[in-house]
Amino acid sequence: MISLQNDYSEGAHPQILKRLAEINLEQNPGYCTDGYCASAAEKIRQTCTCPEAEVFFLVGGTQTNQVVIDTMLAPFEGVVAARTGHISTHEAGAIEFTGHKVLELPQHEGKILAKELKELASHFWLDGNHEHMVFPGMVYISHPTEYGTLYSKQELEAIAQVCHEYKMSLYMDGARLAYGLTAPGTDVTLADIARLCDVFYIGGTKCGAFFGEAVVFTKHNMPVRFLTRVKQHGALLAKGHMLGIQFDTLFTDNLYYKIGAHAIRLAQMLQQGLKDAGLQLYINSPTNQQFVELPDAAVKKLEERGVVYSFWEKTCPDKTVIRFVTSWATKEETVQGLIKILKEIM
Amino acid sequence: MISLQNDYSEGAHPQILKRLAEINLEQNPGYCTDGYCASAAEKIRQTCTCPEAEVFFLVGGTQTNQVVIDTMLAPFEGVVAARTGHISTHEAGAIEFTGHKVLELPQHEGKILAKELKELASHFWLDGNHEHMVFPGMVYISHPTEYGTLYSKQELEAIAQVCHEYKMSLYMDGARLAYGLTAPGTDVTLADIARLCDVFYIGGTKCGAFFGEAVVFTKHNMPVRFLTRVKQHGALLAKGHMLGIQFDTLFTDNLYYKIGAHAIRLAQMLQQGLKDAGLQLYINSPTNQQFVELPDAAVKKLEERGVVYSFWEKTCPDKTVIRFVTSWATKEETVQGLIKILKEIM
Amino acid sequence: MISLQNDYSEGAHPQILKRLAEINLEQNPGYCTDGYCASAAEKIRQTCTCPEAEVFFLVGGTQTNQVVIDTMLAPFEGVVAARTGHISTHEAGAIEFTGHKVLELPQHEGKILAKELKELASHFWLDGNHEHMVFPGMVYISHPTEYGTLYSKQELEAIAQVCHEYKMSLYMDGARLAYGLTAPGTDVTLADIARLCDVFYIGGTKCGAFFGEAVVFTKHNMPVRFLTRVKQHGALLAKGHMLGIQFDTLFTDNLYYKIGAHAIRLAQMLQQGLKDAGLQLYINSPTNQQFVELPDAAVKKLEERGVVYSFWEKTCPDKTVIRFVTSWATKEETVQGLIKILKEIM
Amino acid sequence: MISLQNDYSEGAHPQILKRLAEINLEQNPGYCTDGYCASAAEKIRQTCTCPEAEVFFLVGGTQTNQVVIDTMLAPFEGVVAARTGHISTHEAGAIEFTGHKVLELPQHEGKILAKELKELASHFWLDGNHEHMVFPGMVYISHPTEYGTLYSKQELEAIAQVCHEYKMSLYMDGARLAYGLTAPGTDVTLADIARLCDVFYIGGTKCGAFFGEAVVFTKHNMPVRFLTRVKQHGALLAKGHMLGIQFDTLFTDNLYYKIGAHAIRLAQMLQQGLKDAGLQLYINSPTNQQFVELPDAAVKKLEERGVVYSFWEKTCPDKTVIRFVTSWATKEETVQGLIKILKEIM
Repeated sequence: MISLQNDYSEGAHPQILKRLAEINLEQNPGYCTDGYCASAAEKIRQTCTCPEAEVFFLVGGTQTNQVVIDTMLAPFEGVVAARTGHISTHEAGAIEFTGHKVLELPQHEGKILAKELKELASHFWLDGNHEHMVFPGMVYISHPTEYGTLYSKQELEAIAQVCHEYKMSLYMDGARLAYGLTAPGTDVTLADIARLCDVFYIGGTKCGAFFGEAVVFTKHNMPVRFLTRVKQHGALLAKGHMLGIQFDTLFTDNLYYKIGAHAIRLAQMLQQGLKDAGLQLYINSPTNQQFVELPDAAVKKLEERGVVYSFWEKTCPDKTVIRFVTSWATKEETVQGLIKILKEIM
Repeated sequence: MISLQNDYSEGAHPQILKRLAEINLEQNPGYCTDGYCASAAEKIRQTCTCPEAEVFFLVGGTQTNQVVIDTMLAPFEGVVAARTGHISTHEAGAIEFTGHKVLELPQHEGKILAKELKELASHFWLDGNHEHMVFPGMVYISHPTEYGTLYSKQELEAIAQVCHEYKMSLYMDGARLAYGLTAPGTDVTLADIARLCDVFYIGGTKCGAFFGEAVVFTKHNMPVRFLTRVKQHGALLAKGHMLGIQFDTLFTDNLYYKIGAHAIRLAQMLQQGLKDAGLQLYINSPTNQQFVELPDAAVKKLEERGVVYSFWEKTCPDKTVIRFVTSWATKEETVQGLIKILKEIM
Repeated sequence: MISLQNDYSEGAHPQILKRLAEINLEQNPGYCTDGYCASAAEKIRQTCTCPEAEVFFLVGGTQTNQVVIDTMLAPFEGVVAARTGHISTHEAGAIEFTGHKVLELPQHEGKILAKELKELASHFWLDGNHEHMVFPGMVYISHPTEYGTLYSKQELEAIAQVCHEYKMSLYMDGARLAYGLTAPGTDVTLADIARLCDVFYIGGTKCGAFFGEAVVFTKHNMPVRFLTRVKQHGALLAKGHMLGIQFDTLFTDNLYYKIGAHAIRLAQMLQQGLKDAGLQLYINSPTNQQFVELPDAAVKKLEERGVVYSFWEKTCPDKTVIRFVTSWATKEETVQGLIKILKEIM
Repeated sequence: MISLQNDYSEGAHPQILKRLAEINLEQNPGYCTDGYCASAAEKIRQTCTCPEAEVFFLVGGTQTNQVVIDTMLAPFEGVVAARTGHISTHEAGAIEFTGHKVLELPQHEGKILAKELKELASHFWLDGNHEHMVFPGMVYISHPTEYGTLYSKQELEAIAQVCHEYKMSLYMDGARLAYGLTAPGTDVTLADIARLCDVFYIGGTKCGAFFGEAVVFTKHNMPVRFLTRVKQHGALLAKGHMLGIQFDTLFTDNLYYKIGAHAIRLAQMLQQGLKDAGLQLYINSPTNQQFVELPDAAVKKLEERGVVYSFWEKTCPDKTVIRFVTSWATKEETVQGLIKILKEIM
């Protein structure tokens, strides 16, 4: 079996497992008040070149989006997102569950455009009825996006500029940030993100941790009584030190970047293999998710050869887009094996 | 001053005022348990040819949409609506406030298409990830729409058919239903609406009442403990008999239809006047809202002549769409006066 | 039939009806932006001797409690109330519906004690775990209470003092405020209430209006975007001028006080009659609600004589507390008739 | 340092750590659809002698209470709990956050009485106004309670009987269930719990797991679309197999019971030591939490000797109740060391 279905199928990077085992019998105070959380937060502040950042650790991505968006927004505000944003489509309405509307913008390979954002915001404020409308209070972007694409520094700056102009906070969902930071050609660093975003999260679950997301508030803007609000959402982990030790490990000796770089190298190898096999990339993704359009007959052959992939969508009656994903756990021989099969069946 | 700004600027039809005065000193039990509510409900059931209908009275339109949608949907369900639907745009997120997503469809002169609805529903159920998505549990349509347009019986039947196929309930917002029922060329009756919709409301606020909307559940489907849920939403009127007496009056001697017919006659007169003045209708509305595109210079002249209208939207830098609305209270000389001014300034 | 069941069984005071009729054909802007709302607000500010007060008009009592409490509290805060407070018991969970806990205190004839409030607040802040608890952010009192009792100025000052010390806002539910302001022996004026409370509402529904409650924010503390939040709760009345004209009338020529005084005079007459008949008052209420304990046999006889009352509670297997309520609409002969019957049956 | 502060200070039982390491590189499907979750569920069904049980795994206790209560209740229902119940006091209003009221009953050493429950329920249904009240839809009990006490089988049966009579579901919070099942003198088994409760959870976080709680629905009553609702609450763990492997381990070779028995043995040893030192137990707890009242001077001495405990409450100006807790990780020498110190300082 060759499986490149996802980047959260395995456990955790061995280094994380090792450190969890080492401290297993230690006693730690609960609810992220322990020393490992403090140490991890400090390392994140340094990596972001943002000494004033406030860092809090949560368990999962949807939970993080829900808690951050709900606690940052005023009750009368909504969050702007691409129509294909994770919060718009695949979180079962977790944002609306807390009372906030997701205001959708068109997507362009998963990204939003500063220009269209500006139109939405300016139209809102010009509308004579805007007191009967949902106020756009925050902009949500994912980086990498759900399509594996990345914003350039210039694009981020333009979006941040519009946010600043219309008093909307800018929030980046970094569920797969490790792969974004290490992608070929990107000019966006953690320091840029900390500078341009009001809040973002550094993904752990999909980047080598067992679980965990590190939320970073960059502008002295952590919501008041944040711990209580996390508790109120049912999102406060009792053994918070497990989050601390994982992120402390990820930000020791550049492990987070090494994990990203490994997955990117194999994703690039796979991308080249797909091209060599004469296949049509569905989107030009520089990160660890690769999308390819195949005739249904070819998909069927892949399955017969034991290849596990993610179904993405049907583009026409006899063609399907499928997704392959690499991670810290992916082996080079797995990618080479897949390429070999692809060449054989095409 | 000539004002055709809205259909809820005045008080109530004189007949309603008269009956309220007549019963002013009567004692009635509270919370819509009185005889007038019972009588109004029975008259509505008869007019709808739907003897099994359950009727409840609420105060306002946004409140009604919020209560009906929240109580009819399961917590994991959302409501499908046109991008221009009232609940999508001008209710300050009242639906999301109760935890439900509004799933938006494209609008076509304010209406949704059965075909696009079917695509949304079928795509949802085919998607392998639909358990991580918001379930489409209800379809919201307004009739007349926010653009004054109307569904034909055939269109309604096609939408109801898709709803039935995909187990979504069909809800009609009839805030301006009086004008829909009496529009020229419509083939949709209250009986049709009761037959095709699972729930709808008969608008009072914009159709001659001081306030009030009559919610009609047509399929033995009033949510359990509905009165308690209305109370929980803060939407239960203490002196419910005020709602009863108003709807009892509206459904005595066809008053609801007479109110509609009066406004429609004047709206048609206005429409002809707009055409005669060489103006461009923005949308071909058969109901009491008329939309016209004017050069900004002409809009300015209207204002100088004391004409009050509703701003609708800018279509290009020097053109604006404005709206005129007729009602039970509109006088023929007001419409004629407006037409005269329009002819003079164009 | 003799009915003293409630103070919201009839329509509205004739003066209100008269003015509504007079302006019926006037055109007014919607959503409480009209001149009558402005005029009523100004009269309320003057009566309260609180020129900086911000006033907004809502439709009903539960709705007002829900909107005020939800918009004034931070999401992590709850509201403290007597166990018998209206929000604790008879609003179907409308406060919890918006996400806030009601923190209950013991009741003493419907009132809370400053001392017990201070214990709750000080205990909260001393508790090492208070970050896992609901923060007490507001104190809710009703005046008159659900038992018809009143706070003295000294009691109010003591409660306000504790609120100030522990940074809780003080909110008074004045659903029956007309009767509280005109009760014999009270030393609490509207000016005192405006001085001591952060927010309160002047009840209309139970004090002579068709409907309506006037919310008064006294400390430049109306929540931001309040109109939008009212809309989001489904609580914004389209024809807001109906609220304006009613409160403008109530605060012209002291009508609000005259309505209160009339009902109080008849309630006192009834109370004396109850005592003369040798009956046991359940609570010594100086306002328009009178509670009396009767043997069940006597209750049965009352019913046989056509007397309509409110059941309050069973105190022992063969005794029942019932309630009589007077209002602007109560006639002296009704009270005398009831007294006569009571004397005959006892 | 001697610390008996909590049962969630360390990591996980070594056997759990071992198995997590063994499967670290395996690929598993996400969101609790893996084989380990299936295996753990089956073992739980067998241990409960409840083959029809439906089992789902969540991350933490407050999250579990929130998800279970919100998804099991109708929107107009609240949950009954002891005034000292965890959901009443220490979950930051997580239940109210989802719209439901906690209806409080008096507590008796942390427990509720069937008699008082019956009074609440019968009073609700007799009340003429109950349609304006929160319906009691579920009863929440914790076993062991927040005071370490346990229900007897007879007490549970009486409560279950009242629940059945008044159509309330019975929910047991088993955050520390391992210690309840293995306490001296208890006659309540997992099979009893599964028989008497409609839903309960088997606590992992405080009973040897890194994290995790196993929710057991016993009456074919798992809420529809439960996975989607868990997702909507932000409570669905991506790497659900981590929950599966932990509970599979806990229910292999009776590990869950062994963990409980170890902690109970040391708690009993500590209790005897406290008695031998002449100290006053605050409550007679048969489980792993021991409460003792000490003069403040003695508490100070404990701290000077490096003893870490949980502050519980002040009982009078110079006395304090503190709590000691044992767990799978507690060593006998720690308990003996504490006893020695206690004897020295008293």
